[in-house]
Amino acid sequence: MAVSLSLMSQTPIAFTVGALVFPGFEVLDVYGPLEMWGMLREKGVSITMLAAKPGPVASSQGPRTIAEAALDEAAKHDVLLVPGGFGTRQAVRDGAFLESLARKAAEVRYVASVCTGSTLLARAGLLDGKRATSNKRAWDWVVTQGPNVLWVRKARWVEDGRFFTSSGVSAGMDMTLGLIQHVFGRDTSLEIARRAEYSWHEDKTTDPFAE
Amino acid sequence: MAVSLSLMSQTPIAFTVGALVFPGFEVLDVYGPLEMWGMLREKGVSITMLAAKPGPVASSQGPRTIAEAALDEAAKHDVLLVPGGFGTRQAVRDGAFLESLARKAAEVRYVASVCTGSTLLARAGLLDGKRATSNKRAWDWVVTQGPNVLWVRKARWVEDGRFFTSSGVSAGMDMTLGLIQHVFGRDTSLEIARRAEYSWHEDKTTDPFAE
Repeated sequence: MAVSLSLMSQTPIAFTVGALVFPGFEVLDVYGPLEMWGMLREKGVSITMLAAKPGPVASSQGPRTIAEAALDEAAKHDVLLVPGGFGTRQAVRDGAFLESLARKAAEVRYVASVCTGSTLLARAGLLDGKRATSNKRAWDWVVTQGPNVLWVRKARWVEDGRFFTSSGVSAGMDMTLGLIQHVFGRDTSLEIARRAEYSWHEDKTTDPFAE
Repeated sequence: MAVSLSLMSQTPIAFTVGALVFPGFEVLDVYGPLEMWGMLREKGVSITMLAAKPGPVASSQGPRTIAEAALDEAAKHDVLLVPGGFGTRQAVRDGAFLESLARKAAEVRYVASVCTGSTLLARAGLLDGKRATSNKRAWDWVVTQGPNVLWVRKARWVEDGRFFTSSGVSAGMDMTLGLIQHVFGRDTSLEIARRAEYSWHEDKTTDPFAE
């Protein structure tokens, strides 16, 4: 469903983004996409930080972010953002975490992963039979995490129904603008990119890092 | 001083990055640069989050980051990273904060600002007679904050001695790779960009957002 929305429009909307963090998450995987979503805050888009439980969560780079709500207890969201990072190597073995992730993913309109975040979706059984992508540097490991996923190596991001999965780290920003385009229209994504002084890689099939 | 460093090198270094946060900081201004610096953690680069006082600090987009140390009490750092965001509108009027910033800036090797972060440096008296840049959308306000700064409108980022200032939001990543190049060499920046799957805008004079 495309919702007509211009940043210039006076019509506020209610649209919620839940961003998952876990120990060892990659900072740009989370905050690149949230920068783009944050440009729509004045239009009614709100962001909630989610984790296995509320409280501080240390990133792979060191800095800690505060999770406001537990994944299992959070209100419904329109989008669930799932980052990657070295922490995924532990998280893919955490059955309770993956079950919470699967339950949350079932209730949102869109699931958007960045980098190795797609391994969490794969291990939670969410991507079987679906096309998806991930980080190129971790590719050999990634594909072992989802033998029934239709992995697409050469893509800036991949869309399959309500699942949007991006390539490594920086590609999360391009994927997010693609998802914003899908929901709110291309003009909104172009305006956000201009405000963030970001050169959007708008063609999701172009991937200079796949070689 | 250029330090020869390859990501492949076995020689660890000690190099510290202090990242300033304040209420209403812009998330990508902070976490874009820290993603790049974080790629050098295994080589001995460490990151500390700084604020007027330790504790949680809310970003302009909502999510809170935990500051580990007070600006006035932190250990010496090699780099001080100063983000922008709507919070700068308040911070430029906070004399005590600007004095702390000026003291901290005096002791670091490099001061790097992103977006409207350069207004804080300007108001702290650090950029008088120096070339600097900032966000294009806030330009008219920015220049009033530093009448003696040699503002450069068309630039992805500007280097003047130990001061590196970038254009809006996303440009902070390009500037950071420029600073890493300055300190550690171009090969290191290119390797970090590949690992982050980031298309580095390596020419600091090219600025598609200046028009």
